[in-house]
Amino acid sequence: MKETDIISALQASIDQSSSEVVVPIGDDGSVTIMNSCKQLVTTTDAITVDVHYPKGIEPESIGHRCLAINLSDIAAMGASAKWASLVFSVPSINDKWVESFIIGFSNLANKNKLDLIGGDTVRGPEFFAVTLQGYVEKDQFINRSNAKEGDLIYMTGHLGSAAYGLELIIKNNQNDNRQFIDSFLYPSPRTKEGVLIAKYATAMIDISDGFYCDLKKISSELNKGFKVDVLRLPIEPNLSQQTSKDRAINLALTGGDDYELCFTVPEKQEKQFLDELTSEFDTLFTCVGTITDSQELLVAGNEEYALPENTFKHFGS
Amino acid sequence: MKETDIISALQASIDQSSSEVVVPIGDDGSVTIMNSCKQLVTTTDAITVDVHYPKGIEPESIGHRCLAINLSDIAAMGASAKWASLVFSVPSINDKWVESFIIGFSNLANKNKLDLIGGDTVRGPEFFAVTLQGYVEKDQFINRSNAKEGDLIYMTGHLGSAAYGLELIIKNNQNDNRQFIDSFLYPSPRTKEGVLIAKYATAMIDISDGFYCDLKKISSELNKGFKVDVLRLPIEPNLSQQTSKDRAINLALTGGDDYELCFTVPEKQEKQFLDELTSEFDTLFTCVGTITDSQELLVAGNEEYALPENTFKHFGS
Repeated sequence: MKETDIISALQASIDQSSSEVVVPIGDDGSVTIMNSCKQLVTTTDAITVDVHYPKGIEPESIGHRCLAINLSDIAAMGASAKWASLVFSVPSINDKWVESFIIGFSNLANKNKLDLIGGDTVRGPEFFAVTLQGYVEKDQFINRSNAKEGDLIYMTGHLGSAAYGLELIIKNNQNDNRQFIDSFLYPSPRTKEGVLIAKYATAMIDISDGFYCDLKKISSELNKGFKVDVLRLPIEPNLSQQTSKDRAINLALTGGDDYELCFTVPEKQEKQFLDELTSEFDTLFTCVGTITDSQELLVAGNEEYALPENTFKHFGS
Repeated sequence: MKETDIISALQASIDQSSSEVVVPIGDDGSVTIMNSCKQLVTTTDAITVDVHYPKGIEPESIGHRCLAINLSDIAAMGASAKWASLVFSVPSINDKWVESFIIGFSNLANKNKLDLIGGDTVRGPEFFAVTLQGYVEKDQFINRSNAKEGDLIYMTGHLGSAAYGLELIIKNNQNDNRQFIDSFLYPSPRTKEGVLIAKYATAMIDISDGFYCDLKKISSELNKGFKVDVLRLPIEPNLSQQTSKDRAINLALTGGDDYELCFTVPEKQEKQFLDELTSEFDTLFTCVGTITDSQELLVAGNEEYALPENTFKHFGS
């Protein structure tokens, strides 16, 4: 397989069916069209070995992850992803490795009906950068700046599982509990949920650096605070069993790599939101706290909860 | 300077004035709007040390080049560039280095009135990936597939200067001739010319891998051939003086890194094309050959010209 064959093989693995693509991948640039009622949403995020994932993990996971982290960003804007561009850089080409990467990337692309519209291959460091374009109906995007004091803070899914999975991978306990390892290797971006959540949410972010760190991005953007009850954090029951309760809370607060959505909903819309979302999805939706006037406060029930100083470090940081 | 400060510093150096940016850089994704008569053009290209440029060149050039190569692709589609996203990865942060990179990137961005709408910083290998979005009026893009037999093959600017400049840099002859070194370090993508050329061109490509190699991309896309007279290739007079005539032709044919535009124009439109383009720009426009039925033929005047076997190798390949 030559470098140019990689993009061709990717292209062949991805259903390129959209009538919105006028000039597909393969020219100097792609040409796409967009309905005039819509607004374009663009995200770009890269992953590299030893920083975002440990050396030697399954290439299928790397292909999946570099796309998933961008899908998660698009979802956090309340948008629908459409067109992906990939910069694919590896030091040498191993056909099996590349084929496995392509399976991971293209399965997720096909699941989300994406077109691959741009690509660049480099014989360089192990490095993968994706740009994803999508759209929202006019002004229906959700950014981080419209939450109000009293709005409820909600989470999709579970927190801390991916960080625990990464620990198992690093310790080479890979047979220990595939559930957590898969949470790290194959995160499921909340693409469908994001679009529906956007009908109700006043602010939204995806959890990539860790719940506590990412929630602070919302509150600092707002110049507000929050009160979160750590006992309400959605932690997999198995995780609390395998490690201590405190350790599980710590992983959930600071672990990162969850790619769940954190968003705020006005209290008076809560019922309608829950009715619609839980009838549409099996996904867990958990209220973990509220937006407050100023302080960034963690509690455990009625007591203040201090973030342990020795918090979990995001891999490579 | 912390990693997050880099994108902020870039943002501050780039005039972000466009009313088409609804949500700027800083959220999970940007939101932009586009006039419904227009089509979106997207390109993505990355550069990394020891592959696309030698270690230790001026960081200002690296900032310039990673954007320039994408501007050149947008120009080759006949489009106008609008929005840039940057993945910036360096192993460690040296403030002066970063500041110089930012000067190179932002000067070129401002010259082209680009908004920076996305960014990701990584503490990883020295690697820079840019995605550039722009637009064309409906169906006014130029791809590689519409040239006809008999169309004239035209070039902007000069060929071979950048490849010779790279040789001087590698040999550390940096004071030898700044003109050629700058051709490599600071290529000038033909952004304004591209839009006007698109009124006349039947096919267009930018010269990044080398004239001969890139022209073959057009002819193979068409299932046609070409006849190019190497004596008509636009070579800087200084280049022919500093090296042999044959060597200069070889650099022009296969050197790469020129970021000039190669395009085809129907013969009967030649006069009108030259009248408009030469009245608008000081740029050199040179007819170097024609599109033919099948053979990919190089001639020197009346004689066939054989591409030397020991052709110039693109750096790092």
